[in-house]
Amino acid sequence: MDLDFYKNNNINVDLAIEAHDIVRGQLGTEIPGAVVNRHQFANASVTSVQVVEEKAAQMMGKPVGTYITIEAPAMRDKNPIAQKEVAEVLAQQLSSLFDLPENANILIVGLGNRQATPDSLGPRVVEQSIVTRHLYRYAPEELKGGMRSVSAIAPSVLGITGIESAEIIKGVVEKIQPELIIAIDALAAGSVDRIGTTIQLADTGISPGSGIGNKRTGINKETMGVLTIAIGVPTVVNAAVIAQITMEHFLEKLKSNPMLNKVQQNISPDYTQGIINDILSPFRGNLMVTPKEIDTLILDTSKVVAGGISMALHPAISAEEYNMYLH
Amino acid sequence: MDLDFYKNNNINVDLAIEAHDIVRGQLGTEIPGAVVNRHQFANASVTSVQVVEEKAAQMMGKPVGTYITIEAPAMRDKNPIAQKEVAEVLAQQLSSLFDLPENANILIVGLGNRQATPDSLGPRVVEQSIVTRHLYRYAPEELKGGMRSVSAIAPSVLGITGIESAEIIKGVVEKIQPELIIAIDALAAGSVDRIGTTIQLADTGISPGSGIGNKRTGINKETMGVLTIAIGVPTVVNAAVIAQITMEHFLEKLKSNPMLNKVQQNISPDYTQGIINDILSPFRGNLMVTPKEIDTLILDTSKVVAGGISMALHPAISAEEYNMYLH
Amino acid sequence: MDLDFYKNNNINVDLAIEAHDIVRGQLGTEIPGAVVNRHQFANASVTSVQVVEEKAAQMMGKPVGTYITIEAPAMRDKNPIAQKEVAEVLAQQLSSLFDLPENANILIVGLGNRQATPDSLGPRVVEQSIVTRHLYRYAPEELKGGMRSVSAIAPSVLGITGIESAEIIKGVVEKIQPELIIAIDALAAGSVDRIGTTIQLADTGISPGSGIGNKRTGINKETMGVLTIAIGVPTVVNAAVIAQITMEHFLEKLKSNPMLNKVQQNISPDYTQGIINDILSPFRGNLMVTPKEIDTLILDTSKVVAGGISMALHPAISAEEYNMYLH
Amino acid sequence: MDLDFYKNNNINVDLAIEAHDIVRGQLGTEIPGAVVNRHQFANASVTSVQVVEEKAAQMMGKPVGTYITIEAPAMRDKNPIAQKEVAEVLAQQLSSLFDLPENANILIVGLGNRQATPDSLGPRVVEQSIVTRHLYRYAPEELKGGMRSVSAIAPSVLGITGIESAEIIKGVVEKIQPELIIAIDALAAGSVDRIGTTIQLADTGISPGSGIGNKRTGINKETMGVLTIAIGVPTVVNAAVIAQITMEHFLEKLKSNPMLNKVQQNISPDYTQGIINDILSPFRGNLMVTPKEIDTLILDTSKVVAGGISMALHPAISAEEYNMYLH
Repeated sequence: MDLDFYKNNNINVDLAIEAHDIVRGQLGTEIPGAVVNRHQFANASVTSVQVVEEKAAQMMGKPVGTYITIEAPAMRDKNPIAQKEVAEVLAQQLSSLFDLPENANILIVGLGNRQATPDSLGPRVVEQSIVTRHLYRYAPEELKGGMRSVSAIAPSVLGITGIESAEIIKGVVEKIQPELIIAIDALAAGSVDRIGTTIQLADTGISPGSGIGNKRTGINKETMGVLTIAIGVPTVVNAAVIAQITMEHFLEKLKSNPMLNKVQQNISPDYTQGIINDILSPFRGNLMVTPKEIDTLILDTSKVVAGGISMALHPAISAEEYNMYLH
Repeated sequence: MDLDFYKNNNINVDLAIEAHDIVRGQLGTEIPGAVVNRHQFANASVTSVQVVEEKAAQMMGKPVGTYITIEAPAMRDKNPIAQKEVAEVLAQQLSSLFDLPENANILIVGLGNRQATPDSLGPRVVEQSIVTRHLYRYAPEELKGGMRSVSAIAPSVLGITGIESAEIIKGVVEKIQPELIIAIDALAAGSVDRIGTTIQLADTGISPGSGIGNKRTGINKETMGVLTIAIGVPTVVNAAVIAQITMEHFLEKLKSNPMLNKVQQNISPDYTQGIINDILSPFRGNLMVTPKEIDTLILDTSKVVAGGISMALHPAISAEEYNMYLH
Repeated sequence: MDLDFYKNNNINVDLAIEAHDIVRGQLGTEIPGAVVNRHQFANASVTSVQVVEEKAAQMMGKPVGTYITIEAPAMRDKNPIAQKEVAEVLAQQLSSLFDLPENANILIVGLGNRQATPDSLGPRVVEQSIVTRHLYRYAPEELKGGMRSVSAIAPSVLGITGIESAEIIKGVVEKIQPELIIAIDALAAGSVDRIGTTIQLADTGISPGSGIGNKRTGINKETMGVLTIAIGVPTVVNAAVIAQITMEHFLEKLKSNPMLNKVQQNISPDYTQGIINDILSPFRGNLMVTPKEIDTLILDTSKVVAGGISMALHPAISAEEYNMYLH
Repeated sequence: MDLDFYKNNNINVDLAIEAHDIVRGQLGTEIPGAVVNRHQFANASVTSVQVVEEKAAQMMGKPVGTYITIEAPAMRDKNPIAQKEVAEVLAQQLSSLFDLPENANILIVGLGNRQATPDSLGPRVVEQSIVTRHLYRYAPEELKGGMRSVSAIAPSVLGITGIESAEIIKGVVEKIQPELIIAIDALAAGSVDRIGTTIQLADTGISPGSGIGNKRTGINKETMGVLTIAIGVPTVVNAAVIAQITMEHFLEKLKSNPMLNKVQQNISPDYTQGIINDILSPFRGNLMVTPKEIDTLILDTSKVVAGGISMALHPAISAEEYNMYLH
């Protein structure tokens, strides 16, 4: 199997950790120019992939920068203790990506379409966020202690607004001049067990063409002029991935069978891709695989993400009371 | 390929027309004891499968009865003229399944979970239905002309109520004693191009274990004591079906290649099923494939179905004004 | 002022405590045959009105029985600690109204219209309830400890179903034979400061004509055959009440002014009612006064009520973990 | 009664036609510097108030400009024929307020809070609008005939975003440089029979402090740099208005009674206002009066408004097909 297999077939690998594992698998060795670190918490494991060199960036299809992945299967269990812990880990990791004074001005951006459940994570995080900018300038100094000036927008999607999300955000950024942007987006994952269990943070922002809604313009330091941290959670797997993975597993198995091994070598990626195209053509590119409980999963996840962001941005908010602001 | 392949793997084939085509494909000939008729309309084609003999019923896994399938790809195009026509065809076909006086008492049942978008078709049809029972008994005779006494309930799902839908419906039926039940349900289809494009009517009601929500008890003449017509629309494909179909297409292709033909014969269904199980295990049975626009698709479809039912039940409501009652 | 003033004008006084206060105000003394008790908690005060004698019942327009009112302004403050305490007080008070073995079978009924925000409290409580009946019969004995068999339905409203809620509930009750019914309903209050701050429990169930949706048939021990406890929360004030109270306050003030006192005596209730009728006629009976934040207020309140019910019905669920089951 | 009565009491009179009628009532004659015209249609009457002189503007509390009011009680009747006609009248009146080439770039702005039903009109109109800007630049010339480049945003409200709506809009306007802004907002009316029956168009845009959400910054030609037309529909009446009107009617009646006339003269507005304050204090400024069916009323109205806007902006869309794009 070949990375081009993915590239040719236009399948998103939104998660850096997945891209990393694919490339590493191909190489059979660590990727030069990428540094990986792992930490284990009670209900979550954290993997940081630092893409240091341009060559590694090209191999992985991810810009140079830091990618932190929180893997927490417990998030999906409706367990409030685990969810609180994941929110705390998120707060900690998010804090590690920026260094800002207490009076900094931060803009939260919830990407995606509120009317399409699996793509509604971003707008829902905005609804759950602790927004203070409108109160901040009138607040007495002593009240500002531990609270930062936070604003939040959900720019909706191109099909509804006729405007690229990046254009809307850029317009708002020029008005309110934040020192940091945090952009939340629902992602398409490469495997179903990542849905609702993985959170990715990236100081490279949102790349063009990633996310469920396929943003065409990047939302990052380059386009926005300030540090832009992306927080992504996989909520779907593209249906084509199911078909693709089925074929891959199958061909892999053939390989291990001496009699069938030769056959496997004769089957070209184009051949398998043709079959996948046939199956999915009526809704090409628009078919998503989601768990049945997607509606509540999005709700729960948006609370964890909003809670983690609030703790990271407002030091005065403790883990004990973060969910006091959720609804 | 074998029908047992489906049975063993516990994949729903909710649509009689799909079950029919599979069995017919296996037999290589028409199924004895099943009569098929087709009609073509401008925006819809209608196929009626009458399962006359018990043997055909067993082969297809569908009880003896009449199954009408309306196939209308135009339904998905947000084209109100096509949608009106499909509603009219539905009204016509539905009317052909019952023979009731003008003062008959009819109960509409919207099955499924309002909070899970793809399973919310039934409850939404209830919201769009023209309900008259509470007005009927006080209405003067002349006003009753052309309007029947209609009531409607959405019993929700076992996981939310703790009660089988069939028990709730039976309780209500014993109270209000309708002469006809019309039960609407979202279905799982065997192919993605059926989502939002196919309507199935069956005078056999709902069988145990069918539908997205996997009803355990049947809702039919036997359990309810009155004629029960089911109206189903596929809104999802089970993710396992995508994996399954991928494998089938692939094996089919191998067959046509003389060199690979032999290989294909050596691969057992158990082998392929093992691969599928591996892929889908984290959300086993709970992963659905839906189009991205599922939210609006459900809304549009519920209007077509509610409109068709209203025209069939209330002769006074013409095709020109049926959408006057939708919202 | 006269109680007939209310009766004539067809204004609901859903809360027994309000009816009690009005009658007591008229009498200028305690009502014979009604016993009142008060308890104070940190974030809630509890008033129990026991209507012991038929004469008191007639004066108050409330059947003989026990009416417990929890007044907790903190509920509206988005304060999770206060909300938890109110849920505990509710659990305690609710428990005091029934005496059932651990294996009792209980039906929760959420009255009202899910599609009309201020009337959606009941259906939302159902969604947040811990329903166990479908698991209960298969659970091993040791797991049943501390959990009761609970089911829950939301019968919607007459205008949508064409069936009286009481008929639907009765049908279900005859099927599943619960030992207790708990019916939740949104109420119309007599003053705006009760909205979202007051919970009423009554072992007399729901009386005909009360609640926002104006149920016509009672849901109580008499009609259902088992103890029926009603839990009501005011979510609206009828707009006519605003007009009425304005007039009353004004006339009251005139009374205290010696010069205007005589005028006041000459103004008949019919005269003031005529004015109110003129003002509200375009939406007569259908105009509600709600706070702007009604959407979140209903959400928060439904969690407190569902949490309190869960703690009362399932002794195994502690105050620390009750919100683990809410979403 | 005095206009100051309204001003002092901080009650919104969002509708120019109401402000006009109040002032005219006080003057007992036509307002100098304001020109009024009326037209009658089958299901709608149209009143245009042109505030020509600054003096009239000050008396009415409305800037110099054109205010068109469409009064259509039939809109509330769920009658699709009447709704279509009102949409056509709206299209016609809206077209009269601008003069733009076919390739003009127009921005629709849906003001208000999507999560608070009566304030959600603007965001819902955005969802129903025909947005073309993202398709426009790639479309061949012949396809552009009759379609303009339209984009649409819903900036949400200050309490959720921390940013003034006007700032967000201004940021977007600077990016996409439209030639016209159309801003839709839910209004508070001065009488309940205007709810869902009246549409106001104003070429003066949105004034500071108007609308349900009390925008603090104006959205108009002055702040935005391009012609800004506001479309407003009353969806609530402030509860204080109910109290106020009750008192006014009452005092008016006293006046006509010779014996009570003298009394009326002795009652100061401050006195009546004190009573109103007492009644409404717990939710001061936040209590709204809405009809019970507000959820469906907002849905229906948003379709009429979106349909009217689409017909006005896209000449290729006829009245027969405008609802083809609504959902």
